[in-house]
Amino acid sequence: MNEFELIAKLAKSLPTNKSVVTGAGDDCAVLDLGTPDKLVLFKTDAVVEGVHFTIETPPEKIGRKALARCLSDIAAMAGTPVAALVTIGLPEKFDPEFVGNIYDGLGALARRCGVAIVGGETTTNPGRIFISIALLGTVARGKQVLRSGAKTGDAIFVTGELGGSLAEKHLEFEPRLEEARWLAEHFPIHAMIDLSDGLAGDLPHILKASGVGAELLKSAIPVSRAAKLQAQKKPPFAAALTDGEDFELLFTIASRDAVKLLDTWKKKFPKLKLSCIGKIIAGDGITIRDKTGAQKLNTHGYVHFA
Amino acid sequence: MNEFELIAKLAKSLPTNKSVVTGAGDDCAVLDLGTPDKLVLFKTDAVVEGVHFTIETPPEKIGRKALARCLSDIAAMAGTPVAALVTIGLPEKFDPEFVGNIYDGLGALARRCGVAIVGGETTTNPGRIFISIALLGTVARGKQVLRSGAKTGDAIFVTGELGGSLAEKHLEFEPRLEEARWLAEHFPIHAMIDLSDGLAGDLPHILKASGVGAELLKSAIPVSRAAKLQAQKKPPFAAALTDGEDFELLFTIASRDAVKLLDTWKKKFPKLKLSCIGKIIAGDGITIRDKTGAQKLNTHGYVHFA
Repeated sequence: MNEFELIAKLAKSLPTNKSVVTGAGDDCAVLDLGTPDKLVLFKTDAVVEGVHFTIETPPEKIGRKALARCLSDIAAMAGTPVAALVTIGLPEKFDPEFVGNIYDGLGALARRCGVAIVGGETTTNPGRIFISIALLGTVARGKQVLRSGAKTGDAIFVTGELGGSLAEKHLEFEPRLEEARWLAEHFPIHAMIDLSDGLAGDLPHILKASGVGAELLKSAIPVSRAAKLQAQKKPPFAAALTDGEDFELLFTIASRDAVKLLDTWKKKFPKLKLSCIGKIIAGDGITIRDKTGAQKLNTHGYVHFA
Repeated sequence: MNEFELIAKLAKSLPTNKSVVTGAGDDCAVLDLGTPDKLVLFKTDAVVEGVHFTIETPPEKIGRKALARCLSDIAAMAGTPVAALVTIGLPEKFDPEFVGNIYDGLGALARRCGVAIVGGETTTNPGRIFISIALLGTVARGKQVLRSGAKTGDAIFVTGELGGSLAEKHLEFEPRLEEARWLAEHFPIHAMIDLSDGLAGDLPHILKASGVGAELLKSAIPVSRAAKLQAQKKPPFAAALTDGEDFELLFTIASRDAVKLLDTWKKKFPKLKLSCIGKIIAGDGITIRDKTGAQKLNTHGYVHFA
């Protein structure tokens, strides 16, 4: 048994109870704690020195990123974040000012997003800084957007531009909280996820959960300027498909709503691009179409296009 | 600025919002998410290889302990645990069976306590296993027991026996969930905490939060058999005061309720000792009285008694 098989096996045998609306496997867990008009969202996410940041990363940006990743998951459910706990594992010798600056960056983003920091702990983690954020949010009862609702014929949309996040954006991205709530309030969004592992990595989560496939139009996929600037390292279109940490929203809606959505969006969020990149089809997996024909993306997100 | 000063400073400037009933500084955060009859409890706790367990610790007991520590904090608020998220940081080379067994131990305790495991993540933590648990619970609105309610004249009680936990109990302790809920339902409990850092370390949290002092009767403090067996390493009474990880309940109630509590407790929980160990007094700090007189415990919990 390898580690992925193990984790899949573990996920199947986890204990549950009557409070659980949606357990492991979506962007957040959804719980019913008896609030008449709301459900509770629950999420944790960790960043580790040497994996998600380095000791050269400005500490304010480390703290900001740690919280922003969790906020992006709340956004992907169309929820509102409420309160967070911060766990920091620290090497035995650490610089209190560095840790203070991590908190400053985290606290500034929390304040701006209306999130209370209600505690947490510092503990020892010899060798490296480890930050785990636990975040609670709420969503209007019945308005939570899961990964599992995509339907054949749906239009597939993505916010912003994709690829090349490691150059800068992964430390400064804006969780799409306002946009996601607005979407869920004004349109029947069928399925949604935030892009943490790239379009080729995360769209399959929607497809598998919904039992459908997708056909993407190559020319419609918004490739970021950062990905284009790094063309010598990686072909920009490949970067847009496979680079992680874009933290944009990927969602599907009925195709009849697509034009109205694009029109309304431009007025509401004139500064943030919204692109219709393809459609949900019967079957499975991702097919990419350009003027020369259609090609299936393999399961690991490897891109054949040059 | 040292690390403790830093953390105290950070805790003062954390962002808050109208959902926060009790923020950082008690056993759990208390939130009002609009459930008519309930408040929400929110807690995280981490265990780290080489700090809280070793690679020789049976993995089932590592998982069990990670969750039990959080459950003990929910107990200290007189709450009911509902759902947990599990974050595991793993070295690059790890044994999937070992990790599976951690989950087994954690899952078995969760199931027995009615807690749903609703997700989490595994991430890389080079060098050592790091487990962080985030736990949500509920408590009847107005029935949450804080650290800050102790009043002059209160009787001070502790469950079980204290000291020597490292020999065995720290891996097998039973979170006092049922006992704490029963206490809060049947008696006006003024203040409560779970003993993670020893009586001399944790009673001051109640005293400071409540603005009072305590006088303990040396002969009334229940010293565990494990502490007595390790008398050559550490005087048993010192162990009972300063050893960590007992995870018993420490609480105060009006002295007029003390006799009735002891009588009722014996019938309800005949197997678990309950001891009245002293009283809340005006002033601050802990005074310990024996037949030779009274002596003040210094702030670091160092014990002068042999």
